[in-house]
Formats: sequence, structure tokens, C-alpha cells
Amino acid sequence: MKQKLNIIKIGGNVIDNPNALAKFLKDFSALSDAKILIHGGGKIATKIAVKLDVETKMVEGRRITDLPMLEVVTMVYGGLVNKQVVAQLQALGCNAIGLTGADAGVILARKRPVKEIDYGYVGDVEQVNDKIIKNFIENELTPVFAPLTYDKDGNILNTNADTQASSVAVAMAQHYEVNLIYCFEKKGVLSDPEDNDSVIPTLTPASYAEYKASGAINAGMIPKLDNAFAALQRGVAKVIICHADELQQAIAQGQSGTQIIDETR
Amino acid sequence: MKQKLNIIKIGGNVIDNPNALAKFLKDFSALSDAKILIHGGGKIATKIAVKLDVETKMVEGRRITDLPMLEVVTMVYGGLVNKQVVAQLQALGCNAIGLTGADAGVILARKRPVKEIDYGYVGDVEQVNDKIIKNFIENELTPVFAPLTYDKDGNILNTNADTQASSVAVAMAQHYEVNLIYCFEKKGVLSDPEDNDSVIPTLTPASYAEYKASGAINAGMIPKLDNAFAALQRGVAKVIICHADELQQAIAQGQSGTQIIDETR
Repeated sequence: MKQKLNIIKIGGNVIDNPNALAKFLKDFSALSDAKILIHGGGKIATKIAVKLDVETKMVEGRRITDLPMLEVVTMVYGGLVNKQVVAQLQALGCNAIGLTGADAGVILARKRPVKEIDYGYVGDVEQVNDKIIKNFIENELTPVFAPLTYDKDGNILNTNADTQASSVAVAMAQHYEVNLIYCFEKKGVLSDPEDNDSVIPTLTPASYAEYKASGAINAGMIPKLDNAFAALQRGVAKVIICHADELQQAIAQGQSGTQIIDETR
Repeated sequence: MKQKLNIIKIGGNVIDNPNALAKFLKDFSALSDAKILIHGGGKIATKIAVKLDVETKMVEGRRITDLPMLEVVTMVYGGLVNKQVVAQLQALGCNAIGLTGADAGVILARKRPVKEIDYGYVGDVEQVNDKIIKNFIENELTPVFAPLTYDKDGNILNTNADTQASSVAVAMAQHYEVNLIYCFEKKGVLSDPEDNDSVIPTLTPASYAEYKASGAINAGMIPKLDNAFAALQRGVAKVIICHADELQQAIAQGQSGTQIIDETR
């Protein structure tokens, strides 16, 4: 029987709210199983970019990471946010270690090839070093990842925290029974986007297909859920989508959020 | 016989010059013994503080780290500088891991008590976790420290890189034969501050006392050298003060810089 490992992703909405972040970190630090935290960036990078006269460039609605913006996200995600989270976790008795993909070579990526759009310094994950992450966990460290990776040419790369979380989860599933938990601003996957209490308790491939066919699930959730089922196919035991406030209930009792499982595996 | 460990501190002058930094990192990565890098901050923090309208406060000629300035140094030292150095070392085949004192609880500090001057969020090192650093080294990782520590209350603290380097060196001397190397803008300790070629090849407690008595050594070097001899008394094998360009000659052949030894130990 494999040891349990909870891999939890929090988004910018938690990072941007000091009270919500403090509550979340307290709940996170109290989880008894091995754990990994992956944090998004939050709006502070955009605010600091404005003050530094670094323009936020968009092409066809997609954000571009040019060199000045890469420097901003490296500072803010890898420095300010990551180190404040680590120091707060230390004060809570959780032996956190802040990491970008470059540190100890944990997440190697490739600069996204230029096709229609040049995204700039954006990384697509190529390889997760599961052995060194396992070593950290065995030394009772709690890895805290900033959404940054690196490539073989010595570049730091801006990386989507959701896909970083699923890449780490799939790699660690070789060694652990992995729960991958996405915390976001809703209580779970909603069957009626207008009704915040319409949380779907459990999604399986069959019920997901039905919800998709009926158009009940918000289109914005589809890529996240496709990604979740793909992670299950690649060895992750369970994916949970829940509110950051309900982390403990969602993990410990399975009583909150949406539990995504694949009984066909 | 203990394994060798080189602990190397580079200052802001190297960080601020991309060509000098690239050369230094190439030389550093080529060192065959176990190694640790500790970097200073450089002028970029001051430049970014100006752009962010964060005032650099000084009291009696000493820099104060108030909360806005702490955020700037956390971003710049812990994020921008540290991660760029780590990514460049990875590209050179050196498996670097960037750390502040908070990461894995490696360097616990105490916020400097307020006496005549309130230095703000400045940390005095209390404890170095030699065991986890040794574990990293045994896993063939190269720790790269930003000049930041943390306290038990969850604060990141701005910390002098020179004293951080000597604290780490003293702690690691329990396990390794430690060389502590300070790279700076001169070729070594000069017997004539006006003559850059007047490098003193070797300093012992006796010869240091003579140079001090004669007033030959620049007053600005005295705290650095007192600190160096204190490290030797506490188990460090050798302290070297050299130019960043001459790292390999200074370590491998002892032919550059000033070698500081204490034959009375």
C-alpha cells in the first residue's frame, strides 16, 4: 500500500487575500499526510509590473511573457510570494521548502515553440524529477512550488500552475497514492453556474460525459476537468476541486467540493 | 579525513555585471569538490526600490529595512537574483538549489533587537541546520543562498551575506574540511590600499597583528578579517579573500588572493 500524498494547488484569489491565505496555510499545515503546495501568482505581479512600467502584453486574449515580464514574475512568484508562504508555514511548524522548477532541477520545461503566437518565456513541462521530490518528502520537507520552471539553456520560464500541479501529481503517483486538490473561488464544480450551492459531489467519466452533453457545466471548467481525468488515467488516485476554505473537509471526509474519480481504471 | 567543502560568497559587484557573473558561475560550476554559493544583493534592489517609490532609509549611515524595503529585497534577492543564478548554474551542469534561510528551515535568525537604532527587518543568525545542508550535498545538490533568513514569527529577514557565509561555514565545519572564500572587487587583502598589486599572500594571527599595528591594512577590511579569524577559531580550515575572476587559482593552487590560516589551532 502506497503512502498518501496530497498535492494542493491554490490560485491567485487566495494569494491576494492575506486573511484567506493565513487561514488556508493554517489548514494546510495541519494536514497529517505528506503534502506539496503549488501556488499561482495573484494580481500583485500585475500591480508591480504597472509600477515598474512593464507593459502587460496580450495577443488574442492570451498573456505574453516577454523578458521584462519574466523578470517581474520571477521576482514576485519566486521571491515575494513563495518566500512569504514558506516563512508563514515555518511559523506554523510546517518545514516548507520553496522551489521553482530550476531548484534541484525538479521541473524541466521547454520554452513554448512559436506557432501562431509567440508566448515568450513560457514553459511547457517536459520532465519532473520525482526522485528528488521523494527525497525531500522522506526528509519531512514540504515542497512549495512557485509557477516557474526552467529550460536547458538557463532560462527561467513562466508556467501555468494548474498544469504544473498535474505534472507533479502524475510523476509522484509512481511512489504515492496521490490526491490532487485544486482550490478555487467556488465550492466545487457546479451543475448550475448561477447557483453556488449546486456543487456536484462526485464526477466519474460517465457522469462527466452526461453533464457535458447537457451543457450544465460551465465551459470554463471543461479544460480543468479534462486535465483532471487525464491525471486519473495517468495514475493519480483522486482529483478534488473545492474552495480553499474547505480544504480539510474536502480531503479528510470527502464532504466538500467535487471528488473526481475514475472507477474504470 | 573529512571531505572538502568550498563555501563561496560573491558580492553585489559580481551580481551587477552580467559578464562577470557568467564567468564566475562557469568557474564556480567547474569546481570539483562539494560547494555552496552565497550571493549578496547588488544594486538592482536599490534601482527597483526607486521605481516602486520605496525610499531607501538610512540612520547614522546604516541602511534600515522597513516593511516595503523587506518586500523589495525578498523579491529581488530571493526571486530575481537567486533564481537567475540557479537557472544559469543548471545550464552549466551544476545541480543548484536556491535557498533563503526559511527554506527547509536552514538558517533561523532573530530580528535584531532595537537599541539605539531600529534596523527593521534585519536578522542576526541564530542557528544553521547543518544536517539538512549536509543531506543536500550528499544528494549532489549545490545550495545557493540568498542573503535572507527567517524568524520563528514567520518573518523573512534581510541578512548580511558575509556573516551568513561565515555562520554556514562554521556549522558545516563539523562535517567537512571547509574553505570559506570571499570574492570581492580587489585581488586580495592589500598591504598598500593604493596599490592593487600589493596582495598579502598569507595572513596568520601573528602577521595580521603586525599589519594592524602598522596601519597598513585598510580600516574597512578589519571587520571582515576579524570575522575570518573567528571562523578559523570555530573550525573552518581556511579563509580566502580573492577577486571573483581568480576563484580557481585561489582555491586550487593557492596562488591568488590572500590565504588566511591559523597555524596555532
